[in-house]
Amino acid sequence: MARNTTVNADPNAPAVTEMLARFVATHPSRGWSEGVEREAHRTFANWAGCAVGPARHETVDAALAGVMELQPAPQASLLGRPEKVDIANAALVNGISSHTFDFDDTHLRTIIHPAGPVASAALALGEHLGASGRDVIDALVLGIEVSCRVGNAVYPHHYDRGWHITGSTGMLGSAAACARLLGLDAQRTQMALGIAASQPVGLREQFGTMTKPLHPGAAAKAGLMSALMARHGFTASKRALEAPRGLMQVFSDKTDWSEITEKLGETWEIAINTYKPFACGIVIHPSIDACVQLRNQHGLKPADVAKVVVRAHPLVQELTGKKTPKDGLESKFSVYHSCAVALLHGRAGEHEYTDGVVNDPTVLALRSRVELVVDPSIHEASVDITLTTTDGRELKIFVEHAIGSVERPMSDAQLKDKFVDQSEPLLGREQAGRAFDSCMALATQATLAETIRLLRPAA
Amino acid sequence: MARNTTVNADPNAPAVTEMLARFVATHPSRGWSEGVEREAHRTFANWAGCAVGPARHETVDAALAGVMELQPAPQASLLGRPEKVDIANAALVNGISSHTFDFDDTHLRTIIHPAGPVASAALALGEHLGASGRDVIDALVLGIEVSCRVGNAVYPHHYDRGWHITGSTGMLGSAAACARLLGLDAQRTQMALGIAASQPVGLREQFGTMTKPLHPGAAAKAGLMSALMARHGFTASKRALEAPRGLMQVFSDKTDWSEITEKLGETWEIAINTYKPFACGIVIHPSIDACVQLRNQHGLKPADVAKVVVRAHPLVQELTGKKTPKDGLESKFSVYHSCAVALLHGRAGEHEYTDGVVNDPTVLALRSRVELVVDPSIHEASVDITLTTTDGRELKIFVEHAIGSVERPMSDAQLKDKFVDQSEPLLGREQAGRAFDSCMALATQATLAETIRLLRPAA
Repeated sequence: MARNTTVNADPNAPAVTEMLARFVATHPSRGWSEGVEREAHRTFANWAGCAVGPARHETVDAALAGVMELQPAPQASLLGRPEKVDIANAALVNGISSHTFDFDDTHLRTIIHPAGPVASAALALGEHLGASGRDVIDALVLGIEVSCRVGNAVYPHHYDRGWHITGSTGMLGSAAACARLLGLDAQRTQMALGIAASQPVGLREQFGTMTKPLHPGAAAKAGLMSALMARHGFTASKRALEAPRGLMQVFSDKTDWSEITEKLGETWEIAINTYKPFACGIVIHPSIDACVQLRNQHGLKPADVAKVVVRAHPLVQELTGKKTPKDGLESKFSVYHSCAVALLHGRAGEHEYTDGVVNDPTVLALRSRVELVVDPSIHEASVDITLTTTDGRELKIFVEHAIGSVERPMSDAQLKDKFVDQSEPLLGREQAGRAFDSCMALATQATLAETIRLLRPAA
Repeated sequence: MARNTTVNADPNAPAVTEMLARFVATHPSRGWSEGVEREAHRTFANWAGCAVGPARHETVDAALAGVMELQPAPQASLLGRPEKVDIANAALVNGISSHTFDFDDTHLRTIIHPAGPVASAALALGEHLGASGRDVIDALVLGIEVSCRVGNAVYPHHYDRGWHITGSTGMLGSAAACARLLGLDAQRTQMALGIAASQPVGLREQFGTMTKPLHPGAAAKAGLMSALMARHGFTASKRALEAPRGLMQVFSDKTDWSEITEKLGETWEIAINTYKPFACGIVIHPSIDACVQLRNQHGLKPADVAKVVVRAHPLVQELTGKKTPKDGLESKFSVYHSCAVALLHGRAGEHEYTDGVVNDPTVLALRSRVELVVDPSIHEASVDITLTTTDGRELKIFVEHAIGSVERPMSDAQLKDKFVDQSEPLLGREQAGRAFDSCMALATQATLAETIRLLRPAA
């Protein structure tokens, strides 16, 4: 009987809850390089565009309708919509919206989408507090550092077990960011992290349903509430993260404490954040990139394509192996559909994952010609594709790193194009461009008012 | 590399999410025996008293202060207090309050405290909806059935891993109860359970801090929000509980599906609910009961006690092994302190776990004479105590089942005494008695208004 032991419990873990709390409470404002500062703004701008884009999606409508049953006070803005709700629920709804199109940022070491939980909470609380843009960027950098370092320490075991790591570490990043914005001292920040540690959110089983984007939203809300309660003296274990029955040992068999303790405050996880050029899971991006390149290099038309053999890491099968997606949402988890639209349209934006495109006969025909071969020897960032044409040619391409990766980052101009493409239907093209520019200059702004105004439809 | 498998994943689990949802949505009102109906009322009344008692505790004050930052709408009542807040936060705060003194009900098979998450959500939502007492009792029975059956299926592995099972199954019970109150059909109830499945709450590491009682409160809130979102069409995995990456396989290596599928709607977990005569963790109750019996049988005074050897199950050491608790909260996790007050005062109510009593020199002296001997051969419901008196006698007692257990239940009169003892300081003695009687007749009431009025301080 194993009643009295936690599996593989390590009683000698370093005091990472305390260490992270002191770091969040005391690290100097803008205490990082110009490169980190720039990436923080790119992270914020990309997140904001991703939150505006789906603001009228049925996922956001359903979540907001649930929230409105609480008759929330109009404390904080929803992006892309006219409503205001209380700060906790603004964090929830903006967090849901930002992940609805699966188009947000990715910390590739852990597959965490770091901005969703952290920026959603920081913006809502910051707006209500009258915080400056500087304060919010500081909170964003520090909050993402917390969630991604915890993620590094438990990845991949934690993720492999079935947790959606974005939500199950995100509440810590949100709590950290909100504690920083509230000006909590190290002790109360430690309590905020501890309270949040009891509220991990998210299962990979939910992929393909509205509950996937709930994860960053619910994590944002849980972290924000944890910080508010800590502000008023609510307590938690001082070792809530590292104790034998603390969060990290409970939800992961792997806990590499050095991922938290080493070079804290010197290296920055936000510096290796990436942004998706394609509106689907990151593991399909090499395949899409490869298909777009083949299409453009060879001027391929659908009728030219006899067979496409995609050799890829097993995770591609695991996460995106849906052969016959029924609707837009499911199609995001289909490497077959993604390769088909990449070959047909030369892109894979949100439009290529709509119900109409999923059931387009040309797409269906192309999709049926795509074969996936699982090959553990191929890195998950890479793909090896052989396309056979109807006239018998074999076209080969190997993509080591897809566009949007750390090695091949999107430019600021590409990020702006992505932002405007997403938000134009709700904001108009001109305002969308100005909204992006305002996000990219957030730290210079005395309040968040003007940026938030630009991120919502004109009255 | 284990990237592609969840540990021990079982792809052939029965469709328990669907099964539980259909059960919750379609089981007839009062579709159970008189005994179950009576236990449901005892569960509700005991929970309500436990929520009123600590309503002015600093734990509740701190949580409520955090909530008030949201400027919540006055939709639902707090028990024992004059404030109203929105339904989600009423569920949160009443849930926290009801577990603050660790005095609430216990489903002994799993150590789940079932009412906290379920009753807190059902009362808040029921009040706002204008539901009848009948509706709330139905929701309570069905909600507790869901959380306890899931608990049975994963206990003890899930608990052993470090989860506080009350909060990590409670959001399912809350979601079920709220779905029932909202009149959701089976499909939407399934979605409510699925949304809730991504939001388990609670780590055992938090025991001894305010975050322990947060667990039932946050679970109540998460389940309620899940039901509200499902009402408006928010979706989740249809197999959120049982899939290889669903909640149950992710957070437990043991998943006995028959605990959910067998005799569903025929046997009732609420029928084996128990209520604590002592204001501390259930594993110390046999020890307290034994010490009270020794004291009363032999007329022992503190000066008579030379040594007390407590032979008990290892879980007693594990959960309540604090030798030198510093304050009232910590003393609830000390078998040493508990035996000392039982010998000194013949009881272990909330008063015996206050800071003053913990530092009383007589208690300290008695405490130092208590020894714990771990003995895996003794059942966790039992205890074997040998007390040596200062004049050299050896007094022995074996308690198989403590007072308050299924085998030795508290009477209705004892439950009323407990209720009045707890709530008298806030409600006055006369109103406290009437409040208990009103709770015990809840199903006869057309609305909840009168019961709720009695559970709050007179204006």
